[in-house]
Amino acid sequence: MFFEGSEKKIEVIIADSSLNIREFGQAFWADIVACANAEILSSISNEDCDAYLLSESSLFVWQDRFVMLTCGTTTLADAVMSFIEHVGEESIAFASYQRKNEYLSHLQSSSFQDDLKKIRKTIAGNAYRIGHLDSHHHYMFSTKRPFIARDSDVTNELLMYHINGKAADYLRGVNQSKQGIQDLLALSELFPDFAVDDFLFEPFGYSINGIKGNEYFTIHITPQEKSSYVSLETNVNLANHSVDIYARLLSILNPGSWDVIGFNSPKNTQGFPAHLCLGSCSLATEQGYNIDFSHYQQLCHEVLIPEYL
Amino acid sequence: MFFEGSEKKIEVIIADSSLNIREFGQAFWADIVACANAEILSSISNEDCDAYLLSESSLFVWQDRFVMLTCGTTTLADAVMSFIEHVGEESIAFASYQRKNEYLSHLQSSSFQDDLKKIRKTIAGNAYRIGHLDSHHHYMFSTKRPFIARDSDVTNELLMYHINGKAADYLRGVNQSKQGIQDLLALSELFPDFAVDDFLFEPFGYSINGIKGNEYFTIHITPQEKSSYVSLETNVNLANHSVDIYARLLSILNPGSWDVIGFNSPKNTQGFPAHLCLGSCSLATEQGYNIDFSHYQQLCHEVLIPEYL
Repeated sequence: MFFEGSEKKIEVIIADSSLNIREFGQAFWADIVACANAEILSSISNEDCDAYLLSESSLFVWQDRFVMLTCGTTTLADAVMSFIEHVGEESIAFASYQRKNEYLSHLQSSSFQDDLKKIRKTIAGNAYRIGHLDSHHHYMFSTKRPFIARDSDVTNELLMYHINGKAADYLRGVNQSKQGIQDLLALSELFPDFAVDDFLFEPFGYSINGIKGNEYFTIHITPQEKSSYVSLETNVNLANHSVDIYARLLSILNPGSWDVIGFNSPKNTQGFPAHLCLGSCSLATEQGYNIDFSHYQQLCHEVLIPEYL
Repeated sequence: MFFEGSEKKIEVIIADSSLNIREFGQAFWADIVACANAEILSSISNEDCDAYLLSESSLFVWQDRFVMLTCGTTTLADAVMSFIEHVGEESIAFASYQRKNEYLSHLQSSSFQDDLKKIRKTIAGNAYRIGHLDSHHHYMFSTKRPFIARDSDVTNELLMYHINGKAADYLRGVNQSKQGIQDLLALSELFPDFAVDDFLFEPFGYSINGIKGNEYFTIHITPQEKSSYVSLETNVNLANHSVDIYARLLSILNPGSWDVIGFNSPKNTQGFPAHLCLGSCSLATEQGYNIDFSHYQQLCHEVLIPEYL
């Protein structure tokens, strides 16, 4: 029953303003997704964005950029290389590849170091790890081409581990439904007026994409009791948002520990459960991204149950 | 410069009182050690015990039992199987195999699950994991043959991660010496009257075995800045000992986090630095071992430095 919920992520921004990558069409994106060993399940679109729900996570495509997240044992590095080969390196303004620490990294088909070696054959860039190896940590690669991100180029990631309580029980139960999960997570309050597309996996596991104008959010739930993981990613500017999205999700899902990664997003722990910040790391990249990583744990002693193997 | 300091460990107790496994001699033990891809560097002996210092950690042999620890990418499960095949399963009263979480588990030649599958072909037993997969955790296998450990069958393990400060700097420096490290760790105070045998690796890294009667201690130091790890293991009864060994070592080495594993040893955090116990787990086995695992972290916020790759 083990499933690796933690994601790999790529983001590519196009330099060539005459290029509209949405026009490549679904068949093209299906090929890119297939490079990562995933497939498109469904999609929604608005004037700004196409949002694809994948068998392992999500893909969002705008005219000049795309973001793709995949979990499990997908090979996402291959997807970014395939894309770059297709459009040509000179069309790329910025590309990044990110990888979160896995629950069971030895089951992955490659390590970040392996991915890095491959990617650097196609495009040059800086890479780093933030966080200790024996705790939560994240790997990042980004190109070092001339490019400066706008301040409004914001990304927020909330990664929750070991969810507990009623919501967790519901998400592991047999009677869950898509609407039930949307209500549980209060998504219509957290992301009002977003068009959504969601999928309930068998026997459990849930993915949802939401878009409104050029804003997106995506939530992926791996509820397995011994290795639960729930991620939120959004480009909504949390500082201007009417609802405290992180605080609400933490309150509902009650994770034992969680990481927050912000790109050009101020740190804000208001409304968090009583916690200890086990470690944090800040990094300002030459491309104008101020990256903040923090690893939190609830401020209570956890009595662990042995897992029989 | 990466080296996996975290150890795998086997312990075997012999049922057949007519068998004296010390008499198997060094050539036999060299073969067992070779099964794990390690080799004997040196040894000391007293009336009760032979203590071998290995290229990757240690082996202690008494008349009716042995304990072997190996780090790096050694294949210790193969060593225990080779031993059991040699003496015959019926000669075994108790056998255990333990594996700590690795910094880079994907570099290991096998997972604990792989090891388990192999070992269970030779001998039946219970296995479990204590601790969350995304944090410090330990795997254990033990046989379920009829056997009851004596209360005095005590083992204490202190596993320290991310050592900091003057001692850490010394252990990473170029001017260290065996005597210098013994003095740094105040070993003559912590373990008075123990005969010792130690080895300084190039460019750094240190191992020491100590024995006194049937008591032993062993310390292994992997000082690498990004993945430091120092372990102490001893069967000295800490409750009756004149010096607070754990508190002294924690004070000297100043690790960011540490685990304590006790077998039939009461929990005692006296003299620990200000800390949070991130999680703990207790387990009473049918063989009479009361096992306590606790994962501690210093109670201060750690500002992490990105590691460039």
